[in-house]
Amino acid sequence: MAKQKMVEAITSRDVDFAQWYTDIVKKAELADYSSVKGCMVVRPYGYAIWENIQRIMDAKFKETGHENVAMPMFIPESLLQKEKDHVEGFAPEVAWVTHGGSEKLSERLCVRPTSETLFCEHFASIIHSYRDLPKLYNQWCSVVRWEKTTRPFLRTTEFWWQEGHTMHETEEEAREETLRMLNIYADVCAQALAIPVLKGQKTEKEKFAGAQATYTIEALMHDGKALQSGTSHFFGDGFARAFDITYTDRENQVRYPFQTSWGASTRLIGAIIMSHGDDNGLVLPPAVAPIQVVIVPIAQHKEGVLDKARELEQRVKAVARVKVDDSDNTPGWKFAEYEMKGVPLRLEIGPKDIEQGQCVLVRRDNREKAVVPLEELEQRVPELLQQVHDGMYAAALENQREKTYAALTMEELVGIAESKPGYIKAMWCGDRACEEKLKEEAGVSSRCIPFEQEHLGDTCVCCGKPAKALVYWGKAY
Amino acid sequence: MAKQKMVEAITSRDVDFAQWYTDIVKKAELADYSSVKGCMVVRPYGYAIWENIQRIMDAKFKETGHENVAMPMFIPESLLQKEKDHVEGFAPEVAWVTHGGSEKLSERLCVRPTSETLFCEHFASIIHSYRDLPKLYNQWCSVVRWEKTTRPFLRTTEFWWQEGHTMHETEEEAREETLRMLNIYADVCAQALAIPVLKGQKTEKEKFAGAQATYTIEALMHDGKALQSGTSHFFGDGFARAFDITYTDRENQVRYPFQTSWGASTRLIGAIIMSHGDDNGLVLPPAVAPIQVVIVPIAQHKEGVLDKARELEQRVKAVARVKVDDSDNTPGWKFAEYEMKGVPLRLEIGPKDIEQGQCVLVRRDNREKAVVPLEELEQRVPELLQQVHDGMYAAALENQREKTYAALTMEELVGIAESKPGYIKAMWCGDRACEEKLKEEAGVSSRCIPFEQEHLGDTCVCCGKPAKALVYWGKAY
Repeated sequence: MAKQKMVEAITSRDVDFAQWYTDIVKKAELADYSSVKGCMVVRPYGYAIWENIQRIMDAKFKETGHENVAMPMFIPESLLQKEKDHVEGFAPEVAWVTHGGSEKLSERLCVRPTSETLFCEHFASIIHSYRDLPKLYNQWCSVVRWEKTTRPFLRTTEFWWQEGHTMHETEEEAREETLRMLNIYADVCAQALAIPVLKGQKTEKEKFAGAQATYTIEALMHDGKALQSGTSHFFGDGFARAFDITYTDRENQVRYPFQTSWGASTRLIGAIIMSHGDDNGLVLPPAVAPIQVVIVPIAQHKEGVLDKARELEQRVKAVARVKVDDSDNTPGWKFAEYEMKGVPLRLEIGPKDIEQGQCVLVRRDNREKAVVPLEELEQRVPELLQQVHDGMYAAALENQREKTYAALTMEELVGIAESKPGYIKAMWCGDRACEEKLKEEAGVSSRCIPFEQEHLGDTCVCCGKPAKALVYWGKAY
Repeated sequence: MAKQKMVEAITSRDVDFAQWYTDIVKKAELADYSSVKGCMVVRPYGYAIWENIQRIMDAKFKETGHENVAMPMFIPESLLQKEKDHVEGFAPEVAWVTHGGSEKLSERLCVRPTSETLFCEHFASIIHSYRDLPKLYNQWCSVVRWEKTTRPFLRTTEFWWQEGHTMHETEEEAREETLRMLNIYADVCAQALAIPVLKGQKTEKEKFAGAQATYTIEALMHDGKALQSGTSHFFGDGFARAFDITYTDRENQVRYPFQTSWGASTRLIGAIIMSHGDDNGLVLPPAVAPIQVVIVPIAQHKEGVLDKARELEQRVKAVARVKVDDSDNTPGWKFAEYEMKGVPLRLEIGPKDIEQGQCVLVRRDNREKAVVPLEELEQRVPELLQQVHDGMYAAALENQREKTYAALTMEELVGIAESKPGYIKAMWCGDRACEEKLKEEAGVSSRCIPFEQEHLGDTCVCCGKPAKALVYWGKAY
C-alpha cells in the first residue's frame, strides 16, 4: 500500500524527556515552529484542546460573576512605568513598537506582557463610587515576553492566556477573590486536566512584579520537575495609588480600591503532555480531548462493518465527542495514530463483534480492554471515560507522592536535589539569602509555601535559625 | 433620591449622526478610549455582543469543516515582502517592533495587519500531497493597522476579527469556498444581526492587496453611507507561487494549490449601531443581545412584586437571556437605561398585573406593547423576539430601498451624490479612470459589482463607452 503512512516511533520518555516532549508536540500535531524566534503556531488539534480548556474555565469565571472585555495590545512606555516594581519586572522582557507605518512614534509602545497597567488606566476612568465596585473583569488574549530560550507551550515569546483583573471595596473581599480564583484553577486542573496540584503562596523573591502576595498552583511533571500552572495575585491598593484610582465609599469618604489579578495559559497544554504522556504519545484527559472516542472498523471492506461503525458513531455522539476513521489505512496504523493523539477511548468493531452484538473498548491510559455489549454502549462509554480520568489523576498523584521528599539538613537536601528529581520539603527561616543559597548549592527554587503546612522541624534547613514555614523546593520549567 | 442617576439624553440621530454614534458607544457602555491612539477598550456589554457574534459565526465555520488555529502576531519584514502586491498594500500601515527587551532586533517585525503571509509559511511546511488538502483554517484574533482617523468599532488601529485561510486542490474548489464564506457572512448579517446586505465583487481598484478577486457584503447605514461588512478573497495560486507551496496531485504531478481568505470584524458592532439605533439609544438584534428580556418590577416595594418578578425570570430563562433589575432606581429610569442598551423586550410586572395574571411586554424596536397572560409567557417571549428581529430587518431593508437611486448620466449621479445619501446604481465601462473620476467629481467610491445585475443602459455613466456592468456607488465608512 503505497499510500500507507507509518506512524514513526517517538523518543522514549525515560531516555530523553526533552526530546520526547518535542516529539509529541510535533507528531500529535499540537504546534509548529514559525519563522519568528520563540513564537509558535498552535495547530488545529492543539487549539481544539485549548478551546475546551477555555470553555470550561470561562464558564467558571462567568458563574462567579466575571465579565469578559478586550483591552488594547499596546502599552505606552509612560503607562508601563507608573508602578515602579512592575516596570522593573517587565521592562527587560518586552517587545517595543517604535514605528507606525513610516512614521516614528513620539512615544514607544510595548506589546503587553500582562495588562495590569491597561486595566488600571481603564478602572481610573470608570470607578467613582462604591456602587461601581466590584469590577470583575477577564480577558482572553495573547501576550508577549521576550524569552531567550523557548519551548512550545512551556515558554514561548508569545503565549495565549486569560488574565483576570478585579477591583474591590475592601481588602478582605480582594483577598477572598484571589483565593477563589486560585481554587478555580486547582479545580480545573484536577477535574478537567486530571492533574493534582499543590496550592500555596510564592515567596517574596518569586512573587509577581508589583504584587503584595502571589499564590500559585504547582504541578509535578513526570520527570520530577515542577510546572507553575496558574497564579493569582493580591495587589493591595498599590496600583490604585500609582494610577490614582479612587472611589467614594458608603460613608462618603474617598478611598483606594483593592485589586487582584490572576492568569492561566497555554502552558496547561504542556502540563497535560508532561503529566500524562507516555512512549506511545499523548494521553488526553477526557474533559478536554477534542476526540473522546475514536471508532476503528476492523476488516472494514467486509459487508456491514462501515455501516455498523457509522451507526455506532451516531449513538456515541449523544454521550461523547466521537469520530469514525474510515480511511484506507490499516487498523494497526490507526491504533498507533490515535494513541499518539491521546484519544481516551478506542472502539473496535469488526465482523465477529457484529455477529456477537458487541464491541471492544480500549482505554488509552492503561490499554485495558473491555468487551461491551452494544446495547450498553451509551452507558459504558461515559463510565469508561470517567475511569480514564480517574486513572490518569491517580497515576499523576502517585507520581507526585513518589517524587516528594523531605530534607532536614542541607546535605540531605543537596543530595536529593542531585539524585532524585521531585519536590523537596524543607523548613525555611523566611530569609531571601537562604533561598538564594539553595538555588546556588542545590539548583532548586522555592515552588511555594503550601497552604497545608507540615512541621518537619524547628529550624531552617539552610541557616539553622528558627523556621517560619515549610517550603516545597524543586527544579522547575 | 440622591443616588438616582439620570439617563442623559443623547444627541439626536438626525441632528448629528457622528455625535449620535459616539454617544451610543459611550452611554450604552460598549467601548471606551485608551491612551493608545486609535485603540479602544471593548467593555463588557460590547464584548458580550461580540461573543454572541463569535459563537454564531464559529458554529457556521465548524459546520462547514473549518478548524481554528492560532498564528503568531508578528511577521518578519522579509516574510511580509514575499508577495509584491500584498506588501505594497499593507507596509504603509503596519506597526513595527524594532527591539525585544533591551536588544535591537536584527530584523524588524510587524504586528500582523492580516495573516496571509504567516499562513502561507505554515502551509508550505504542512502541505505536500493532495491528501493534505483542503486545509480549512480560521483564527480569532486582533490585528493592527496604523490608521490616521479612527472611530470605535468602525475603524480602529487595533480591531478584533476572524480571518479564514484555506488551500484547495483546484481553482473551482477555491472559488466555491470564497463564495460559500461570503454567503455565510450575508446569512449571519440577515439572520443574526437583522441587517440586509448587498453581495457583489469589488473592482480591481478596491480589491484586497494580493487577491485575484475580492467579494464583499455591503450594508447601508441609516445615514445612507455604506459599510463594508465582510470580505472574501480568491487568491488563485499567487501566494502559493510566492511562498513555494506545492503538492503532489492525484496524477503524481507537482502543483500549486489554490487559496482563499475571508474576514469579518468588530466593525459588525458598528453596523448594528448604525443600522438599528434611534434617539433613545442602541437597538439590538435579539440573536446577539446579551440581555434579550429585562424584567422591570413596578411598585416593587409592594408585597409579592419582587417575588413574582423573580419567578417570571426563572420561567423566561428557559427561552431567553433574561435579567431582573431589582435596583432601587425608578421604573422610568430603568425604562430609559435598557432602551439605551437596546434590550429587545421589556417585561413590566406590577401589583395590578399580578392581580390580573398578566404582564406587559414592550418591544424596543417600535415600542409596541402587548398585554400577555402569564401562562403564555414561554410561548410569547420567543414569538415577540422573532417579531422584533423581523421588524428590525424590514426597517433596515426599507431604509436601503428608500436610499438606493439610479443615475443614467453623470449630472444625475453628481446631483444625487450631493443631495441624497445612499447607494447610486449606475452603469460602468470597467475602466479605473472612470472610477477615479466618480470619486473626484461625486465623492463616491464603487461599493461593488452586485451579483444581481440590472440593465440600466448600454453605456458607462461617466465616459459613454459601452458598459460592462452595473455598479453600486456610494460614500462609505
